Amino acid sequence: MPEPISTPALQVVVLAAGRGTRMRSAHPKVLQPLAGRPLLAHVLDTAAQLQAQRRVVVVGHGAAQVRERFAQADAQFCEQSPQLGTGHAVLQAAPWLDDAAVVLVLYGDVPLVRAATLRPLIDAARAGSLALLTVTLPDPGGYGRIVRDAAGQVLRIVEHKDANEAERTIAEVNTGILAAPAALLKRWVAALRNDNAQGEYYLTDVVAQAIAQGVGVQAFASADPDETLGVNDRAQLAQLERIVQARQAQVLLQAGVTLADPARIDIRGAVTCGQDVFIDVGCVFEGQVELADGVHVGPYAVLRDVRVGRGSVVQPFCHLDGATIGAQAQIGPFARLRPQATLGDGVHIGNFVEVKNASMGQGAKANHLSYVGDAEVGARVNIGAGTIVANYDGANKHRTVIGDDAHTGSNSVLVAPITVGAGATIGAGSTVTRAVPAGKLTVARARAVTLEGWKRPTKNSEGS
Amino acid sequence: MPEPISTPALQVVVLAAGRGTRMRSAHPKVLQPLAGRPLLAHVLDTAAQLQAQRRVVVVGHGAAQVRERFAQADAQFCEQSPQLGTGHAVLQAAPWLDDAAVVLVLYGDVPLVRAATLRPLIDAARAGSLALLTVTLPDPGGYGRIVRDAAGQVLRIVEHKDANEAERTIAEVNTGILAAPAALLKRWVAALRNDNAQGEYYLTDVVAQAIAQGVGVQAFASADPDETLGVNDRAQLAQLERIVQARQAQVLLQAGVTLADPARIDIRGAVTCGQDVFIDVGCVFEGQVELADGVHVGPYAVLRDVRVGRGSVVQPFCHLDGATIGAQAQIGPFARLRPQATLGDGVHIGNFVEVKNASMGQGAKANHLSYVGDAEVGARVNIGAGTIVANYDGANKHRTVIGDDAHTGSNSVLVAPITVGAGATIGAGSTVTRAVPAGKLTVARARAVTLEGWKRPTKNSEGS
Amino acid sequence: MPEPISTPALQVVVLAAGRGTRMRSAHPKVLQPLAGRPLLAHVLDTAAQLQAQRRVVVVGHGAAQVRERFAQADAQFCEQSPQLGTGHAVLQAAPWLDDAAVVLVLYGDVPLVRAATLRPLIDAARAGSLALLTVTLPDPGGYGRIVRDAAGQVLRIVEHKDANEAERTIAEVNTGILAAPAALLKRWVAALRNDNAQGEYYLTDVVAQAIAQGVGVQAFASADPDETLGVNDRAQLAQLERIVQARQAQVLLQAGVTLADPARIDIRGAVTCGQDVFIDVGCVFEGQVELADGVHVGPYAVLRDVRVGRGSVVQPFCHLDGATIGAQAQIGPFARLRPQATLGDGVHIGNFVEVKNASMGQGAKANHLSYVGDAEVGARVNIGAGTIVANYDGANKHRTVIGDDAHTGSNSVLVAPITVGAGATIGAGSTVTRAVPAGKLTVARARAVTLEGWKRPTKNSEGS
Repeated sequence: MPEPISTPALQVVVLAAGRGTRMRSAHPKVLQPLAGRPLLAHVLDTAAQLQAQRRVVVVGHGAAQVRERFAQADAQFCEQSPQLGTGHAVLQAAPWLDDAAVVLVLYGDVPLVRAATLRPLIDAARAGSLALLTVTLPDPGGYGRIVRDAAGQVLRIVEHKDANEAERTIAEVNTGILAAPAALLKRWVAALRNDNAQGEYYLTDVVAQAIAQGVGVQAFASADPDETLGVNDRAQLAQLERIVQARQAQVLLQAGVTLADPARIDIRGAVTCGQDVFIDVGCVFEGQVELADGVHVGPYAVLRDVRVGRGSVVQPFCHLDGATIGAQAQIGPFARLRPQATLGDGVHIGNFVEVKNASMGQGAKANHLSYVGDAEVGARVNIGAGTIVANYDGANKHRTVIGDDAHTGSNSVLVAPITVGAGATIGAGSTVTRAVPAGKLTVARARAVTLEGWKRPTKNSEGS
Repeated sequence: MPEPISTPALQVVVLAAGRGTRMRSAHPKVLQPLAGRPLLAHVLDTAAQLQAQRRVVVVGHGAAQVRERFAQADAQFCEQSPQLGTGHAVLQAAPWLDDAAVVLVLYGDVPLVRAATLRPLIDAARAGSLALLTVTLPDPGGYGRIVRDAAGQVLRIVEHKDANEAERTIAEVNTGILAAPAALLKRWVAALRNDNAQGEYYLTDVVAQAIAQGVGVQAFASADPDETLGVNDRAQLAQLERIVQARQAQVLLQAGVTLADPARIDIRGAVTCGQDVFIDVGCVFEGQVELADGVHVGPYAVLRDVRVGRGSVVQPFCHLDGATIGAQAQIGPFARLRPQATLGDGVHIGNFVEVKNASMGQGAKANHLSYVGDAEVGARVNIGAGTIVANYDGANKHRTVIGDDAHTGSNSVLVAPITVGAGATIGAGSTVTRAVPAGKLTVARARAVTLEGWKRPTKNSEGS
Repeated sequence: MPEPISTPALQVVVLAAGRGTRMRSAHPKVLQPLAGRPLLAHVLDTAAQLQAQRRVVVVGHGAAQVRERFAQADAQFCEQSPQLGTGHAVLQAAPWLDDAAVVLVLYGDVPLVRAATLRPLIDAARAGSLALLTVTLPDPGGYGRIVRDAAGQVLRIVEHKDANEAERTIAEVNTGILAAPAALLKRWVAALRNDNAQGEYYLTDVVAQAIAQGVGVQAFASADPDETLGVNDRAQLAQLERIVQARQAQVLLQAGVTLADPARIDIRGAVTCGQDVFIDVGCVFEGQVELADGVHVGPYAVLRDVRVGRGSVVQPFCHLDGATIGAQAQIGPFARLRPQATLGDGVHIGNFVEVKNASMGQGAKANHLSYVGDAEVGARVNIGAGTIVANYDGANKHRTVIGDDAHTGSNSVLVAPITVGAGATIGAGSTVTRAVPAGKLTVARARAVTLEGWKRPTKNSEGS
């Protein structure tokens, strides 16, 4: 009985050396953002979904920027310099490719191709073939056409400029994405010639070698032309952004989220939703956002790395970043939560209120024009309108502790470090700098005096 | 001379028992919101527009929730349990249907059908026919086809699975909406059989009975496929939401309203506009909103139950709820008006200002960072930046009365209950708790002291 | 050697007399706004791009309003009253047209036609022809068709109602825009007759005269049907608004700007961008906006007449008007900058902060709930949360000067006119009305007193 043959490992080469002149950018093209992440990150993710055992990125223009941005990624970088074509690019990666592996070649500026679309190519390569990803276009002009025989077998790829009239009617075109056994691919790219008008080494020319050597060539057509779109300018980048966003909106809808308008939601990261979540128009989500059952997000909310508890309502115009919100809370409108804002169940945060690095206990309220920073606020505390929990002495930030059921008066200031006892009341307009005793009223306030004989100023001619 | 024959009354049956599994919701499908109201509310409205003398809603999944939500509606509810098909559903409604009436069958999840589309069906039913609503689809696959003879007479409905090749080319399909004399319909649904694969009683099968019994069957084609769309999942719900919103935008445009972008306005209720109203991008309207001649609404305004007077301007990012605004007022940006805010002509409300349950007289201003709650503010009053009209003593809300032409200083607090006399001036930084006399300057302020030898703290290593 | 023949001057006639009944407006149609400017302004701009030596606007309905709105424009106005058709309108302009010139006739409600499209017409007119602008429509119904002979020569224009079946299949239609030698055009319009159903003098009828007189008629087809669209109702106005906005978005994209969504940006004026500018969804730009290299504008920013320096970030929900912002600044979220706000490099303006007619030095910060008006704020100043720089004494606005490195405490008030010395610190809750010495702590604050025996009020039955 023979030894079981192990499946050849997958090694992915990502071509990411191009300049992207038409982007008119100081940054390399593969670092341009799509759904909040660099183009290249999307391609590396796809490779990861395919369980690539190694990811080799061929960099060139802006190589240092790309390496730095992906310093934490589990990927090898190799440099193509000068840049003499796609075949030459793969040749630079050859030293990282094991002969026993299969290789999938992806492009850093073709970020939407799905792992599911690529799996058949990898399987074919594992079976010894050269596998091509193709796509059928309504207007194939300019692209290399896939010429098949009557049996559907791939005969060759003919470039647009070399195609005869019959071949130009072929709608199936080459995407450039391919998979092959590593040993073969390495041999082929080493044998490429640059005797063409541009003087470049084209990866596509490996197809002719494969056919000449009797290696099977299989072409797999993508069902969705969107996934093979490349990014060459900002208009295409914007087009792909909309495709990604539409895809993500459909995922939410299928999961049972109500979207007021699937064309007006932007997700740059991941949103996970419970049952019966409602998301109104114009919301922007970044990072990791979790919305529990029954959460209602009003129009024009911007949420980044936020967890919102069951049944909570985010009113219009909220900017929530790095916050954790309990159940049945009411947030906004016009609320700003900043990192480490941790709100208990039933907390109310109203308009023009900022909370930063502060916890608020169950049922606490800060409804109007307040700043609560670096504080521990107890349950059922009422932060009066205009209250400032002042954490900054001009150099350092200090903490404030406010006991359960305390109330702060309007326009009061709590100068940290300070503690306010449970059930304490601070009078309106008071600035307190020392511990406020529990259960009592503390006031720091000057007596009102009415001035006799005072006249309100009258308007100068130059006043406005 | 014969007695005048009275027109048969219209009785509408709405099928609303379905679960809507694909909505993935804890709530019954017909309660899902469309343009801010449950799907079922739209259908009941259509019935009301048709002067239905009775509306019978057949409920099933989530019956209690539906009944509760529509407890105030002038409708009968009857329960279908178990749910054995559309014909069985109508059979449950039969006890509420008078033999002398005509019956129109609608669907709780088909909310966009227009009254005008349905009137011919009702007329035909009053004339003794079974009337069907049909629609012509570019891709009719899956639907029951309307088979007509050469003269256009309906011969039968053939289900997709039973249709031959010729029948499958028929683009006119059954919508399920029908009207018939009540006596006939009741007899037909009672005679339905469930000898089909699903074991259900199909309402469609009444057509065969009508034809067999020589009752005329008339099919009326809807000109607009959108109006017969049903809601089975959240993607369809979102699609219908956009159709409703586009319809509403067109109504405003035809009425002479300028919309910066008809694809970016959301109306969940009713907006009535005077002449030359301008509505900028991204506005959301809820409840009853009235905008008088020449009102300008800036981008990203959220208005709910608001009346805005002639020539007033709502700047960007306003949230107005339950407010009444006079003529030539300036609101925002970043203004929040809450219920019972009543603003006179020429009032200015500026950024980060909240007004709640307060009236403001002609020409009064609150331009910056203020809260005005539970107050009567006179004409030409100037509320200084940072003023808080504090209405809450920790338990109750009290009223504040501010006389005409009074000015409050920056960061002042008026602790209710309090009165401020006409023409009074309150000094900056003052907290006043007792009546402020008219025409004079009242100040509550500590003297400034400069501390010698004080050093500003220096930054700790752990500070941030 | 003959004298060089000077090129005939271009004189443009703009027909702008129509009422626009379907706009349902109190204002004349040509004053309706498109991309923030009246329709007529777009047409006059096009004429200016063509180096028109004279622009003659024929006004009628709302003539006074149009004249007033364009009082500063370099244009002649002549009145058409009564309004007897387009030919009659051009006749009114005849006295302003020099025989030696060529005339281009444009329409005040056809605002999108490009100068490049019109240049061939002007050249043809300079060569002695009557030149027509035509467009090919998928559905030409209702429009006058361009009848050409086999050689492509224009034979005549046939109105839809007069067209035979073959002529109705012609997809090339007349737009009404034409150019001709002035002497000819003046003669032709003087000879027009109104023996038609409407009793009007039609400009189109000059074509027949030209042909009868053996003057060459050349028709130039616009490649883009959008540019010949007219505005007759608000739906069409909205349609053109979207076309203009899409055009402008494409210009930015081609220039290398990243737009999160080209369908959600509105430009009413001009935006000039450096390299690698990012503009998020929903931004609105008015007037002249300049964004330097690397500027990042977050979602839902409204910018009017603003300059933003290199690398600065505008967070979500900002309203910036008439401000100048240095490099590496951080603005927002929820910031409001008003005219003459001038911010140095590295300035931070945070949430719920308003700056008006004030300069802030390098590295100064106002991060929370503050109003800074009519002030000169030094470098590295920290404006504490809730600080009000109070510039208004009830009648006049005064200036405040704050020295470098000063800090203001939370909820402090600076009553102008006042100076704060460099490095001064103002204690929290202090209202200062006189000069604050440099380098020291100045406090105006009452002592905190705790009241024994005080009870927090309890809730009344009628309280809320």
